[in-house]
Amino acid sequence: MTRLPSETPALQVAVLQGAGAAGAVAVNLAALEAACAGSAAAGDALLVTPELWLTGFNIGNDARRLACTRDAPEIAALRDMAGRHRLALCVGYPERDGDAVYNAAVLIDGTGAVLGHYRKHRLSGDYENATFNRGDGTDLVAPVGGIRTGVLICYDMEFPENVRRLALAGVKLLLVPTALSLEFAFVAEKLVPTRAFENGIFVAYADLCGVERGKRYAGQSCIVGPDGADLARAGAGPATVRARVEPARFSHLDDRLPYLRDLAAG
Amino acid sequence: MTRLPSETPALQVAVLQGAGAAGAVAVNLAALEAACAGSAAAGDALLVTPELWLTGFNIGNDARRLACTRDAPEIAALRDMAGRHRLALCVGYPERDGDAVYNAAVLIDGTGAVLGHYRKHRLSGDYENATFNRGDGTDLVAPVGGIRTGVLICYDMEFPENVRRLALAGVKLLLVPTALSLEFAFVAEKLVPTRAFENGIFVAYADLCGVERGKRYAGQSCIVGPDGADLARAGAGPATVRARVEPARFSHLDDRLPYLRDLAAG
Repeated sequence: MTRLPSETPALQVAVLQGAGAAGAVAVNLAALEAACAGSAAAGDALLVTPELWLTGFNIGNDARRLACTRDAPEIAALRDMAGRHRLALCVGYPERDGDAVYNAAVLIDGTGAVLGHYRKHRLSGDYENATFNRGDGTDLVAPVGGIRTGVLICYDMEFPENVRRLALAGVKLLLVPTALSLEFAFVAEKLVPTRAFENGIFVAYADLCGVERGKRYAGQSCIVGPDGADLARAGAGPATVRARVEPARFSHLDDRLPYLRDLAAG
Repeated sequence: MTRLPSETPALQVAVLQGAGAAGAVAVNLAALEAACAGSAAAGDALLVTPELWLTGFNIGNDARRLACTRDAPEIAALRDMAGRHRLALCVGYPERDGDAVYNAAVLIDGTGAVLGHYRKHRLSGDYENATFNRGDGTDLVAPVGGIRTGVLICYDMEFPENVRRLALAGVKLLLVPTALSLEFAFVAEKLVPTRAFENGIFVAYADLCGVERGKRYAGQSCIVGPDGADLARAGAGPATVRARVEPARFSHLDDRLPYLRDLAAG
């Protein structure tokens, strides 16, 4: 019997977990270039970085100093990387817009075209609130490889309301650049899987690792399936982990975990 | 130095995990009586049973046949137990109201007074939808030992919206009679702790165990604190587990996990 090629959308997704280099944009771009080459060789279609990967996360006022506009050379460099490696990218960076600076992420497709930018809405703690302007909550939703994909950043995802809103908008794959402190490892271990489970979606959660100017990160970047089970999970150190994201493989959950359908029924 | 007695409300809460006896009300009442005696001896102030404890859960049409009104002798027996043992009780039972039958729970204080009844809103699967009428979603919120307490039943709690609504209404302790299938053990392991963590509340989750007419339960009844950490957790077999519920002990989380405060800020 001949097997017909599958026509359902599928995507090999990778999350890059690294320590990054605080304040050293060129170093972080070079590390991403190397990760892209590895991803392309491994057959990934999409690579997600941690929060503020471009500049480092815990860098105080340097985040404002290093913030770049959407048409800056740094964003052009990311687009070039995506196009050369035929690899979609979701990269965290500090975005300058006039006097405002946002904790942002850009989503780029595998041709190098920008699908959109997202600005973190829920800023967490004193550093972020002192450093960044708050995004207005506008969602970024775009198809990547035929799969409806959304982006939230770190603390945004910890609010169930935000993930539910995206799931109700048809998102099947949620990308989450993050910078999770070790003391909140609970989020990576239990909350992220719960978000996937309660919405029947894939979540790709890309965390920093190591210590950055005294802040110790949790690592545990992961890709979780719609049944809440890990498809891939990193440990405490640098790693790129990957998994196949194929919503049709989990269609049996439509009846087994019908949260969205039951919610729609009122 | 003399220690002053604490003036912050605190409650020792127990969850009864048992197999129950399908369709045998007298047996289940006797088992609860024994559990109440054990609870009183252990210093518990509140005991929570699994879903439909009075009659058994997976009993088909027997649930309708055995359903009782709020003024039935079975409810009087529960009130008598609570009063004699000076123990608040939350007990799952099938409630008859005219032609309607609800998957309900009654909350009784330690004097035997009924604080309220709750009717399950989110019915799960074919059996429940064929057997029970759907509650209208009216919440049950009442103080128990000075702690604002709410009740949801099983699948209700799996929707983050329901727990959030209760937390925003000031609930600090959520009681959840449940009948969780083994295949959904994820709920007890990760989703219940996430509900506690994301709302900064205590959750007391009382599950059935063993096998009932072919349905295998997960056990893993638990009491989880506002930081998402287990205060107590049962295994796969019959057990009563208990923990001290003292919201003031977790007041440091107001700044560390300020989900509700940040949500209120818009």
